[in-house]
Amino acid sequence: MNSPAPRAIADAALSEQEQRYVESVERTLLDHTTRQRLMLTEVSLDALPLIDAIEDLCRGGKRLRALFAYWGWRCAGGDPEAPAIVRAGAAIELFQAAALIHDDIIDHSDTRRGRPSVHRRFQSVHEAEGWRHDARGFGEMAGIIAGDLCLSFSEAVFASIGTEQSASGRARRIFDTMRTEVMAGQYLDGLSEAIGGEDPTTALERASTVIRFKSAKYSCEHPLAIGAALAGAAEPLLRQLRGFGLPLGEAFQLRDDVLGVFGEPELTGKPAGDDLREGKRTVLTALTEQRGGPEEAALLDEALGDPALDDAGIERVREAIRATGALTEVERIIDTTERQVRAALQRIETDAESRRALEVMASRALRRAS
Amino acid sequence: MNSPAPRAIADAALSEQEQRYVESVERTLLDHTTRQRLMLTEVSLDALPLIDAIEDLCRGGKRLRALFAYWGWRCAGGDPEAPAIVRAGAAIELFQAAALIHDDIIDHSDTRRGRPSVHRRFQSVHEAEGWRHDARGFGEMAGIIAGDLCLSFSEAVFASIGTEQSASGRARRIFDTMRTEVMAGQYLDGLSEAIGGEDPTTALERASTVIRFKSAKYSCEHPLAIGAALAGAAEPLLRQLRGFGLPLGEAFQLRDDVLGVFGEPELTGKPAGDDLREGKRTVLTALTEQRGGPEEAALLDEALGDPALDDAGIERVREAIRATGALTEVERIIDTTERQVRAALQRIETDAESRRALEVMASRALRRAS
Repeated sequence: MNSPAPRAIADAALSEQEQRYVESVERTLLDHTTRQRLMLTEVSLDALPLIDAIEDLCRGGKRLRALFAYWGWRCAGGDPEAPAIVRAGAAIELFQAAALIHDDIIDHSDTRRGRPSVHRRFQSVHEAEGWRHDARGFGEMAGIIAGDLCLSFSEAVFASIGTEQSASGRARRIFDTMRTEVMAGQYLDGLSEAIGGEDPTTALERASTVIRFKSAKYSCEHPLAIGAALAGAAEPLLRQLRGFGLPLGEAFQLRDDVLGVFGEPELTGKPAGDDLREGKRTVLTALTEQRGGPEEAALLDEALGDPALDDAGIERVREAIRATGALTEVERIIDTTERQVRAALQRIETDAESRRALEVMASRALRRAS
Repeated sequence: MNSPAPRAIADAALSEQEQRYVESVERTLLDHTTRQRLMLTEVSLDALPLIDAIEDLCRGGKRLRALFAYWGWRCAGGDPEAPAIVRAGAAIELFQAAALIHDDIIDHSDTRRGRPSVHRRFQSVHEAEGWRHDARGFGEMAGIIAGDLCLSFSEAVFASIGTEQSASGRARRIFDTMRTEVMAGQYLDGLSEAIGGEDPTTALERASTVIRFKSAKYSCEHPLAIGAALAGAAEPLLRQLRGFGLPLGEAFQLRDDVLGVFGEPELTGKPAGDDLREGKRTVLTALTEQRGGPEEAALLDEALGDPALDDAGIERVREAIRATGALTEVERIIDTTERQVRAALQRIETDAESRRALEVMASRALRRAS
């Protein structure tokens, strides 16, 4: 017998703690929507489909952000069973649900978490009932309002942490910063698609900004910091956690961008080359333009955002990304970033169990094909 | 000499207090957006147009809701100079700005407070710069995000009231209820337009629900209650204020609906019959259907939501509303509701100055032609 066995036992214990936490978060989500459902029953039964849509959406998801908040909290010595971190996790998950609802309207996405996106769901009701005016407009109206409602729920749940937790003010400031940054990141993402073929250096810079603020800080760094701050972490620990969360989120998103172009549909659950058809401007496309000549620039210019882009078109773009060395370059950046993640992990001054939990989360995030 | 002179002096003093309060609210709004601007400068200068749009929108408005919060606070004995009520007022105004940004996307409105609506503003930039893809889609993307950002700002400012105010938890619950209710009201409003020509009793009931939750409670009752609760008002006073705010808001909105059909464009600032073209389903149109025959139902069915409705068409609808007695009936409801407002005002147990302030606000709201 050698060492893996005790580690496997320890990891199973971690996973059990995570599961208990996630269940508490999900109970809190359902408690909140149930209370809101009761309130809306007083207004009009016709408004309940808004709650149904939010509840269904909140049932899915990997709870990645809530779990980062949980381990940030635990790293700072927070009580595993305290309600404050459950509420913070639920608030973050509700914020994510709100962002997804509005993102899907903006991106005209038909599905989300394997079901129709919220605005499409309402559009379908309009079509099935044969109501008047524009079904698509009705769906977007309902989607905008459902997202606003979900954003308000997120806030209400965060506020319910209340004063029982003396450090809630600090966590609140990070929560506020996170919201502003991720919204700015979303706007910059849309702006990049609109501006398109700008000079490669600007495009690369903008793609890096979007990765940082729309994804990396939002999905890893800020949730870790919110949990830690809520538990009263001192500044050095907060900095150490941020130093781990930011590169982890960046590596994750860079991998996601590669998969968005090269991923196997059976593994990603999305059609091949979906990011290209959507017109997503990423570090990968920016590097291809920077390293390629006018031919590659023209090719990307034409392909990106073309909803009718076919398999041959996708293959031509893939070939350009490979031939210019952009793919190798992104893989190199991912490698370097992953090394930063591992080094940062070792610098986090916390107990062995929490550090191991972060390591497992990082491995899960980084070693993926979907 | 008789009594008006002292009353005029007292009213001038009230108006001066209101002005001082409004100036503080506006300073708080600008302080907040300035801090957010600084934060976004770290993200990307390209994101600043989001802040510009929110700031410009927040410069306008009558601060009606903030003032109701202020007088609710004062009725409950709140300190006229306390920062808590300034922050609450600013949070409510930011919430209103967020609602307007998203409403204008939903209603496809081109202007707001005499300027281009936020999504149109971004659409114009796209057109002027000759960016790629759909300018309208870009405008809506930016508008959805600007509204989300503004909603987050509202939350952040409300949360900044913090624990310095021991009653902030109660005020927060009303703030949360208000948001859920107004969003549900907006959805029901859109639903009414989509369903259209349903049976008149259902239509009337739905129109009354929309008035109550989207307008009356939101614009008068809840702001009064938020202010009073923040100052630690006891339940009886809260009930008295609600009993005044709800009918006041209802009378105001019924008047608004009449003006939306019969108002003079020079006074309302909106094209004649704009509500008809938008397809707004109101108590006025529901009563016309209920009191009229199949002919009136068919006429409304055709006219409501027809963007090409011309002056002759508008006149035909006006004539139907008059001929069925629906206009007289709505005027009668407004009269009754106004009497409720006056009776409720007398029942509010507060100081003479605050009661007079509420009376002045009510008169201003009710005696209007625009």
